[in-house]
Amino acid sequence: MMLKNPAAKYRPFPAVPLADRQWPGRAITRPPVWMSTDLRDGNQALIEPMSPEKKLRFFEMLVKIGIKEIEVGFPSASQTDFDFVRMLVEENRIPDDVTIIVLTQAREELIRRTVESAMGAKRAIVHVYNSVAPVFRRVVFGMQQEEIVQIAVKGTQLIKELVAQHPQTQWGLEYSPESFSTTELDFSKQIVDAVSSVWQPTPANPMIVNLPSTVEASTPNVYADQIEWMCRHLERRDALVISVHPHNDRGTAVAAAELAVMAGADRVEGCLFGNGERTGNVDLVTLAMNLYTQGIDPGLDFSDIDAVRQLVEECNQLPVHPRHPYAGDLVFTAFSGSHQDAIKKGFAVQKPDAIWEVPYLPIDPADLGRSYDAVIRVNSQSGKGGMAYLLAQEYGLELPRRLQIEFSRAVQRVADETGREIAAADIHALFSREYLEQASPWNYVSHRMVEDSAHGVQIELNVARHQAPQLLQGSGNGPIDAFVNALGLDIRLMDYHEHAIGMGADARAACYVELRVGNGATLFGVGIDSNIVTASFRAVVSAVNRHLAATGAKEQAIAA
Amino acid sequence: MMLKNPAAKYRPFPAVPLADRQWPGRAITRPPVWMSTDLRDGNQALIEPMSPEKKLRFFEMLVKIGIKEIEVGFPSASQTDFDFVRMLVEENRIPDDVTIIVLTQAREELIRRTVESAMGAKRAIVHVYNSVAPVFRRVVFGMQQEEIVQIAVKGTQLIKELVAQHPQTQWGLEYSPESFSTTELDFSKQIVDAVSSVWQPTPANPMIVNLPSTVEASTPNVYADQIEWMCRHLERRDALVISVHPHNDRGTAVAAAELAVMAGADRVEGCLFGNGERTGNVDLVTLAMNLYTQGIDPGLDFSDIDAVRQLVEECNQLPVHPRHPYAGDLVFTAFSGSHQDAIKKGFAVQKPDAIWEVPYLPIDPADLGRSYDAVIRVNSQSGKGGMAYLLAQEYGLELPRRLQIEFSRAVQRVADETGREIAAADIHALFSREYLEQASPWNYVSHRMVEDSAHGVQIELNVARHQAPQLLQGSGNGPIDAFVNALGLDIRLMDYHEHAIGMGADARAACYVELRVGNGATLFGVGIDSNIVTASFRAVVSAVNRHLAATGAKEQAIAA
Repeated sequence: MMLKNPAAKYRPFPAVPLADRQWPGRAITRPPVWMSTDLRDGNQALIEPMSPEKKLRFFEMLVKIGIKEIEVGFPSASQTDFDFVRMLVEENRIPDDVTIIVLTQAREELIRRTVESAMGAKRAIVHVYNSVAPVFRRVVFGMQQEEIVQIAVKGTQLIKELVAQHPQTQWGLEYSPESFSTTELDFSKQIVDAVSSVWQPTPANPMIVNLPSTVEASTPNVYADQIEWMCRHLERRDALVISVHPHNDRGTAVAAAELAVMAGADRVEGCLFGNGERTGNVDLVTLAMNLYTQGIDPGLDFSDIDAVRQLVEECNQLPVHPRHPYAGDLVFTAFSGSHQDAIKKGFAVQKPDAIWEVPYLPIDPADLGRSYDAVIRVNSQSGKGGMAYLLAQEYGLELPRRLQIEFSRAVQRVADETGREIAAADIHALFSREYLEQASPWNYVSHRMVEDSAHGVQIELNVARHQAPQLLQGSGNGPIDAFVNALGLDIRLMDYHEHAIGMGADARAACYVELRVGNGATLFGVGIDSNIVTASFRAVVSAVNRHLAATGAKEQAIAA
Repeated sequence: MMLKNPAAKYRPFPAVPLADRQWPGRAITRPPVWMSTDLRDGNQALIEPMSPEKKLRFFEMLVKIGIKEIEVGFPSASQTDFDFVRMLVEENRIPDDVTIIVLTQAREELIRRTVESAMGAKRAIVHVYNSVAPVFRRVVFGMQQEEIVQIAVKGTQLIKELVAQHPQTQWGLEYSPESFSTTELDFSKQIVDAVSSVWQPTPANPMIVNLPSTVEASTPNVYADQIEWMCRHLERRDALVISVHPHNDRGTAVAAAELAVMAGADRVEGCLFGNGERTGNVDLVTLAMNLYTQGIDPGLDFSDIDAVRQLVEECNQLPVHPRHPYAGDLVFTAFSGSHQDAIKKGFAVQKPDAIWEVPYLPIDPADLGRSYDAVIRVNSQSGKGGMAYLLAQEYGLELPRRLQIEFSRAVQRVADETGREIAAADIHALFSREYLEQASPWNYVSHRMVEDSAHGVQIELNVARHQAPQLLQGSGNGPIDAFVNALGLDIRLMDYHEHAIGMGADARAACYVELRVGNGATLFGVGIDSNIVTASFRAVVSAVNRHLAATGAKEQAIAA
């Protein structure tokens, strides 16, 4: 196969007539309003959409991070979404300073159902959209421009009428001309003006105009031109909140959002770590931390980014890429000796209250609750002598990536102490010493466990503590939860992997847990056992003992 | 924890004094020169660097794609890299129209070693760099500007002297003021002018000036301003090739490269799928396909993007994210009914020779050797009734993501035929019928295998073909290779997963293979067996039978 000549099939994106554009000379000086559509655009793009329980956990995390506008679903399209919104409202789960948004197409029965879903909330925004781009008008709907305008106008009239009947809620309107980015600008202006002329927003009660790049189709400067053009030409601009909703089809959604804010946008819709249809929505984490590194407070809290990432990965069942800005496993890792040297010198002169200026690190990893890792290679560049490869090939141990990085520090410590490269044969011994033989102060002896679906897990646990036997009891949702409760320690499980070593009668399980003990840095423990549950208990004990050894903390200090 | 006020610790990136910037009014009309640094910047950022074998396979793929400038290593820093470059030269593996690039710091012994590594190549570029940013001058080196300039000048003088002694190679020079993006522009100009004044490039024999964003530290428009400023102010501009090397710390490397090309850059350095230090180098695949969708031939061939992706994932041991533009598993997948409807209508009216205009698909997936998938949810939005969840929970089957998508088509087919939603209980039966009970025309019966490290794998295979027993023989590097050779079919293995179901004496293995048979679309086969090797054979047979059933191809047509 060969790529065809694209000139016959694709064409350049048309330029925007904007000779005197202002945005390239501007900089961002304050954060936009953040709107999370994780529970709507993000959720509807998952292979397995979230359960109501997961949605609620995600919602509560968004609130905790500091997001004040949260799109909670598409209630007219899904009973699950409808029920979820009702639950939020009826169980009073929406803080006073948070506004929920409910999406709907501009069709009568859907609008009625949507308004119904949010009734009783303190504040709610009805987000109505219709597709306006030429290809939709021609191919999908077979409609002229005027008919498309009428759909938006009639929808807005109906919403205005319906919400007036429910004054206990403070209602807002968001209008999206869907596929704005591939629509003629003057038509987008015409339809938005028609909608705002119905809604009659004021500077005190503005209307949100969301201008999506439903499919990213141009370099980001063109999108910025489109936004600046709209900001200059729309009627009632002072009564509008201009919002952008960039998708990432060309890999430039973050740039599109940033340039659009320079061009006048007030608000950005996106998802954490860039989830969303196809290539995803713009990533709110990257946008927020990009502002942070410019000295601008984003108003969002990602100081424990690993915990946020863990919850998002669990809810979305999609990974955050190891090279994802700020959050990926590898982004604070230096492999090259010259980089490690420069970073070391940078840390040495960096004063706590001075401007951050460590080479190769655009942000202090500690601000995100993370740490910097210098990875020493056992046998640089050979590609077959690395420690992870060795442990996998020779011992069947498949270390999670962050554990590989953590373990490399132990290898480096030994290399520094002995002043020489570690021989391959020593790696497994070092791994065993560091993770598998951690038997003090805690040691696992045996357990008895009762599990039933109604009452969860009850456990009786025999441990040795400084070699003295102790009998402990605990309960929880699952075995690890019950085990941790029995230990009575302040432990948060950050990550968990388990796999079989060998097959058949001799098979054993290797379990890797990443924990946060108290407010400490996260760290790993490893356990191996023929029983998968016992392996996980051994792993937790390994991590706890390692934490105590590394920090010198007293056991009392880590009690729950 | 709470994010601190960043204003005390970080500061805004300074603006570039460029009142009359031209780039925002330009568009990209031709591709830049592509330079792949996968084997250098990419490779040195891997947990397990590539083996020489992998490097060679990667190099040959880069050549096949059409990349003409390939940075092949850092020979003075690594014996493996040195040997690899010598092997390329001595075994005549560099096509006449491909230029290799070898990186070196500007230090005498390293430069000598670097020139030595490339001696005898038809064309080679010595890529010399030194760090020029204020923080490096102050913290890392403790040097004044003039000393930094002297490092670059002396290095260039030495290279000029050395290459003159080896005229059988056509030598070029690339100079990188490392950390350009955080360096004072007038100092960058000063040092580049000093280097070019030594090298004395001409329009016929230009010198490459590479201006990296070693750490991405600003919005991409600022980087474009920097590039435009340099293009306007550098001496001997007509004898320079201006190159950019964007990293992705702020998630905007693709945009930075695009805006920089608009600002005057002639050449882009990056890696396939954005591998590279920390957050990665700019992604050459996305850049190339972004041009393609604008009707501009990128000069690179990604018409079988899955095969490229497979090799890159194997060499880098890093995944391509499911939402990665053009290449991710989910980017041509529609979950929403309204999207599916619009896409269906778009396909219906799309003529083969017309401008591409299918809603929600910025590119024809067929141009990349891929296909569009409409995923039907078994139990929409419930999050617990999805088919993947069901198969995992109830049957221990962990379907790879692309298989989940493929299997959803079978579910949809049945839903279309029966006109109703598939009950959860039917899912496993359908999966078994579709993948596990594919016993015709081929069926696996038994095998005998001999494996030794010197001679690979020899296999004797009993199969049934249209129920008639056959004895086949084959050999190969591994069991699947030998099996496929014994079958005598034209099969390429695209992906392979295997996992245990259950533990202990009853454990079985489930194997999933993704194949391309002949020039057909890739498809999956699944095998389950207590023996892991047998499971993989069953999976291959399943895929072959499914291919024949789906395409109606004759068996003879797929012979190797």
